[in-house]
Amino acid sequence: MHRKAENFSSWYSEVLLKAELIDYYDISGCYILRPWAFSMWEVVQQDLDKRIKSMGVKNCYFPLFVSEGALNAEKEHVEGFTPEVAWVTRSGSSNLTSPIAIRPTSETVIYPYMSKWIRSHRDLPLKINQWCNVIRWEFKHPTPFLRTREFLWQEGHTAHEKEEAARAEVLEVLDMYADVYKDLLAVPVIKGEKTRREKFAGADYTMSTEAFIPATGRGIQAATSHGLGQNFAKIFKIEFENESSQKCQVWQNCWGFTTRSLGIMIMLHGDDQGLVIPPRVAPVQVVLIPIMQEDCNAEQMKSDLVRMEEELKSRSVRTVIDDSSSRTPGWKYNHWEMKGVPLRLEYGPKDMQAGSVRLVRRDNRAKFDVSVEQLGEQVEKILQDIQQSLYESALRVQEEQTRKVTGLEEFMEAIGKGMMAVAPSCNREACEEAVEQETDAMLGSLKALCIPSQQDEVAEGTRCFACDQPATCHILWGKSY
Amino acid sequence: MHRKAENFSSWYSEVLLKAELIDYYDISGCYILRPWAFSMWEVVQQDLDKRIKSMGVKNCYFPLFVSEGALNAEKEHVEGFTPEVAWVTRSGSSNLTSPIAIRPTSETVIYPYMSKWIRSHRDLPLKINQWCNVIRWEFKHPTPFLRTREFLWQEGHTAHEKEEAARAEVLEVLDMYADVYKDLLAVPVIKGEKTRREKFAGADYTMSTEAFIPATGRGIQAATSHGLGQNFAKIFKIEFENESSQKCQVWQNCWGFTTRSLGIMIMLHGDDQGLVIPPRVAPVQVVLIPIMQEDCNAEQMKSDLVRMEEELKSRSVRTVIDDSSSRTPGWKYNHWEMKGVPLRLEYGPKDMQAGSVRLVRRDNRAKFDVSVEQLGEQVEKILQDIQQSLYESALRVQEEQTRKVTGLEEFMEAIGKGMMAVAPSCNREACEEAVEQETDAMLGSLKALCIPSQQDEVAEGTRCFACDQPATCHILWGKSY
Repeated sequence: MHRKAENFSSWYSEVLLKAELIDYYDISGCYILRPWAFSMWEVVQQDLDKRIKSMGVKNCYFPLFVSEGALNAEKEHVEGFTPEVAWVTRSGSSNLTSPIAIRPTSETVIYPYMSKWIRSHRDLPLKINQWCNVIRWEFKHPTPFLRTREFLWQEGHTAHEKEEAARAEVLEVLDMYADVYKDLLAVPVIKGEKTRREKFAGADYTMSTEAFIPATGRGIQAATSHGLGQNFAKIFKIEFENESSQKCQVWQNCWGFTTRSLGIMIMLHGDDQGLVIPPRVAPVQVVLIPIMQEDCNAEQMKSDLVRMEEELKSRSVRTVIDDSSSRTPGWKYNHWEMKGVPLRLEYGPKDMQAGSVRLVRRDNRAKFDVSVEQLGEQVEKILQDIQQSLYESALRVQEEQTRKVTGLEEFMEAIGKGMMAVAPSCNREACEEAVEQETDAMLGSLKALCIPSQQDEVAEGTRCFACDQPATCHILWGKSY
Repeated sequence: MHRKAENFSSWYSEVLLKAELIDYYDISGCYILRPWAFSMWEVVQQDLDKRIKSMGVKNCYFPLFVSEGALNAEKEHVEGFTPEVAWVTRSGSSNLTSPIAIRPTSETVIYPYMSKWIRSHRDLPLKINQWCNVIRWEFKHPTPFLRTREFLWQEGHTAHEKEEAARAEVLEVLDMYADVYKDLLAVPVIKGEKTRREKFAGADYTMSTEAFIPATGRGIQAATSHGLGQNFAKIFKIEFENESSQKCQVWQNCWGFTTRSLGIMIMLHGDDQGLVIPPRVAPVQVVLIPIMQEDCNAEQMKSDLVRMEEELKSRSVRTVIDDSSSRTPGWKYNHWEMKGVPLRLEYGPKDMQAGSVRLVRRDNRAKFDVSVEQLGEQVEKILQDIQQSLYESALRVQEEQTRKVTGLEEFMEAIGKGMMAVAPSCNREACEEAVEQETDAMLGSLKALCIPSQQDEVAEGTRCFACDQPATCHILWGKSY
């Protein structure tokens, strides 16, 4: 097994394969999400879907295909996406009369219909969402989960009467995404606004959650919530009559959360023994392993384990009994550690006599002997504790690895050490571009990750860390994916 | 509004649009599933997904794309699907080095990996499923839900050690599909085996559930469960070592259930007032409509309705209060009838005084005055009754419209009257083809729908209805979609 700290990318590939999360596919940039990965996605989906519906959003499904005309309607948006669009030009053995694009995202698919469906202020807000696959034929090096040519996501699209309502929703969604990262994936994220240079093609502004992978010293965009303003409403004529019978354009948002989230979780929590899955998203939360010995009562042992499993299941704990006789307990320990199951229950002859079991935490290897009567309660408590401590230790590291800097030298030093840097900035595109270019040779893929929502005020007279012009805000920088 | 009995296809389009189920799209054969339709699909999905998982099947996700080599691996399968395959040949403005197909179904995507993942009998059975979109670029006239170039489905793929286990699963899945049609969509289906001519390309045999749309006199394939035998196992080398260390090939099945199911339900139950949705899949099961009058206590009325809604929600009844002041009650009645909501609750000043509400069934227009205290209980009872009576009356009609025939003349008469015909048959492909061709001018799209699983024994000496050779079974024939 590769070491995470020594050869991160080999470690990542190895974990993905050995934990049976993905398999590589014969088309570059496409991966197979095996049941172990997909069931985590299902947990995330179910939870997020509930949150989305409780905002009054309705699910629907729009076509995979986009006509050329629709795709090209919004200029900035097109420029952002066309280099990565996959085109269908043939069906069977006949050429299509005009090529058809596969959605890289669905603004241009959906908004012509928003225009049709919205007539009056009574039709607003219109809030829809879809769970689907999208295709972006990127030429950057693909990485499973993080950068893939096909990925799964939800994309929410909403139209509002008033700008304030739209703005409030952008933040509401951002909080929702941050909560899902925290509550389910135990991933701390930093909320903020993207710089002009990094915002979504066609949006007025983009809010994002940014995560950090200490092992690579890289920040990573974790989910985004875009305020589209009236940009698309103008192009697609999405208009309504307000209460005073005036024609107005709607204010729109769109927002998305993708399978990338699983990659972030895997990279953040995994260790040299393999995957470490936060209990809330673990397909199996407790694996029960009998330790058979020649003189032990195997029947009794099995029936005890079945009873324990029932107790755990009655508390909605997801369990598996691994009682196959073809593998040793040691092999099984390694196997389920590799797969990242949060808690292992060992049950041998001595435990039987004592009426207890041994529990072993995946995250910190702590061991507990727990009486069978207290099992359910203790397991629930320990799972909660694992969830919380994974989050808290990731947060601690993230804070330690975020350096406040004021000048370029300090900035370069922090980034060079694999940290993120928060720097006072002029927030001009030209300056941002210059920093990227000047540092490219030394640092590579350095980016303005976001303008954190929570930040110190910029004291009067503060200068931009890079160009020495007056600073207007603090920007979070880091190497990135 | 068009009449269902007079102009079925205009009626169908009108219901789909006015009930806000779908919208037409600017790419032919693709449709938008609006929230009203999609939420029915979600109910079906959740229910079917639970059933699938309880069979020990695990969800996963394979890529949308198939390489040309993989797609062409199984000859019969290729021939069945290639005329309808959509090909991606370009990304951005560059041509791909080789064209990439979009999955019309995923056997050739998945089975190379089954070959990789299966080594030993201990890896069997391997049972996976995915919920996804597939593309079949059909040139037949598209019909929303029934024949669309993109559709949503689940596709289950399993591999077994023994033929018997595979065969048993084919039937288990068939029963599951029939149950979903019955329990959720209130659609009676006929289970049976497809003839050789109609089976899935590449399968040993295909079992299907067939539904019947009385308004058009057409049968329609409702879901299929295929026994693949070892056909794909041979091609993709899906082999395992059995307990005696011999190399063997697996026995495989695949099975699918699609969004077509919604179209069948709509066509079957809808009437001249619009959609009629069986309660189990209705996005809204009860719509509560206040009948405001000038002298009535509007505040009191609203708070009463809110209380009633809470009572219903506490029983997991899906409700909406339509108290908008911009529409009359009469407009609302029509609107929610068009949308197919199973039960309407009217609440006016007289009801307030009497402490009761009026309930109106969508299916048969029956009206009940029910005291507010008994509301929850009564609503549950009526919804159950609607579900059952929709199914039973559809079953009655289906049985009435299925004629047992022995000779060609009778056969033609039954089909000509818009019925299905069960006829003793030699079950030879040549005979089946001859019947199709000879009747084509007169009847069009006539097909052997299936060999029903439940059927009378063929008495000795019985001859095929069409060719007069010895009959071996009864075949269900009908015009079809």
